[in-house]
Amino acid sequence: MEPIAYVNGSFVPHSEAKVSVFDRGFLFADGIYEVAAVLDGKLVDNASHLARLERSVGEIQLKLPETLARIEEIQKELVKRNNIESGLVYLEVTRGADTGRDFPFPKADVKSTLVMFTSSKEIIDAPSAKAGVNVITVPDLRWTRRDIKSVALLAQVLAKQAAAAAGCSEAWMIEDGKVTEGGSSSCFIVTRDDVIVTRKNGNEILPGCTRKAVVKLAEERQLRIEERAFTVEEALSAKEAFITSASVFVQGVVAIDGKKVGDGKVGPMTARLREIYVEFAKATAV
Amino acid sequence: MEPIAYVNGSFVPHSEAKVSVFDRGFLFADGIYEVAAVLDGKLVDNASHLARLERSVGEIQLKLPETLARIEEIQKELVKRNNIESGLVYLEVTRGADTGRDFPFPKADVKSTLVMFTSSKEIIDAPSAKAGVNVITVPDLRWTRRDIKSVALLAQVLAKQAAAAAGCSEAWMIEDGKVTEGGSSSCFIVTRDDVIVTRKNGNEILPGCTRKAVVKLAEERQLRIEERAFTVEEALSAKEAFITSASVFVQGVVAIDGKKVGDGKVGPMTARLREIYVEFAKATAV
Repeated sequence: MEPIAYVNGSFVPHSEAKVSVFDRGFLFADGIYEVAAVLDGKLVDNASHLARLERSVGEIQLKLPETLARIEEIQKELVKRNNIESGLVYLEVTRGADTGRDFPFPKADVKSTLVMFTSSKEIIDAPSAKAGVNVITVPDLRWTRRDIKSVALLAQVLAKQAAAAAGCSEAWMIEDGKVTEGGSSSCFIVTRDDVIVTRKNGNEILPGCTRKAVVKLAEERQLRIEERAFTVEEALSAKEAFITSASVFVQGVVAIDGKKVGDGKVGPMTARLREIYVEFAKATAV
Repeated sequence: MEPIAYVNGSFVPHSEAKVSVFDRGFLFADGIYEVAAVLDGKLVDNASHLARLERSVGEIQLKLPETLARIEEIQKELVKRNNIESGLVYLEVTRGADTGRDFPFPKADVKSTLVMFTSSKEIIDAPSAKAGVNVITVPDLRWTRRDIKSVALLAQVLAKQAAAAAGCSEAWMIEDGKVTEGGSSSCFIVTRDDVIVTRKNGNEILPGCTRKAVVKLAEERQLRIEERAFTVEEALSAKEAFITSASVFVQGVVAIDGKKVGDGKVGPMTARLREIYVEFAKATAV
């Protein structure tokens, strides 16, 4: 059976899931998105994703077409309809479709667009969870408001395509000699002194939901965390490196630009944090 | 009668002009656009727009789904079907719709999306052509590849919305104390010595088609042109300021952030360049 998507109030097969060519998401990247993981048919850390959604739309003065509670209901309904046990729910809100194309916000009677779809994906037992991933580095070309989770993702597309072309699954973006974040993940290293280092939130990076949860879980376990920028050289001489995101949870980085990190294997701290996060995800999924 | 749009090979009424929610234009702003003016039912400076389209798609390795010659045929067909005498033709090419959402480029069998639509607009006798326009200044938040005419336009949306909220029709974007360009236009000043100044092309700005034509036409008339960055202070103490774009041609800027430029009226050089451009546009439209 064809999977079902949600488009502005209707549940429709993927092949019929369409938006107007006048949709401001299509014309202007005037929209916000979120991706939440699904485990055991339940939404992982979804309150955090919805809180970030609310913040992002607020930053660009975009009105949600539904309440957060209703959005979560639709997410759940879609997961159920598509029978997703392990996977992702994508949601996008845009400033709607006016009758023409004009940069400033449309009149208040143009309703925001809400689109959602799901995909099945093995997250817990993904092969890359055990083997780790290789990453490349690329210059960070993005705009200055990376804290807003907008669909203006062309720089990330180019970064992740460069990674794919090099046989890697992620690109670490570099600005002023420091790592900002991955194309679709937050970056961490574990120093020789077992300090977990990740960049501080600000306009320079997206405040990762999984990043936030991992930092909190680590702190609760009295692990040492430092929020600061780091260089690629520092990452290469670190004990471990890893990335976090809603779709990979915690994933070891075993090489950067073809150079081994640590012993070139997923390290014990990364493995432990992954385990802790999976436990949290399962225990709190809704 | 409802206007007609072009979507991937079909001419359809605007209300039926739709793309998949999996279209990479909608999900990732992974697309390029162009806007050409129409005068007397003909395309203005279209070869220049198509050349820029070809360059932009090349920069992001996006394959055009049709030849430039065929694209121009479709533009003309659409202008005819919608009976546009004076107005605009918008065209957007995206990296197509895959079956799911994944950052790297899809497989080669995913065909690029091509969408076009038109709008009627008085360009020659627009009231703002005589009266000039007021602009505000905003920080330039954009990414570092502004020479690519991508649909990742959220920063421009926010800039032009700020302008609209202030009762202005354009926002000049400022970086490192200098004007880069307008939200959807190129910026010029005319100094006390009658030198026409506009920023040099580079990654910092879009190479404007109308900008290019105006510079060439001015040079042919032995007017003095200097391509360099300028500050807002310089613009405020200049004789004249103006903007150029496919949709406004040449338009006087009479105030910046509420402060008068020159005597607060459209200046003689601006009026002359507008006249020269209109003459060129009419003479060369196809």
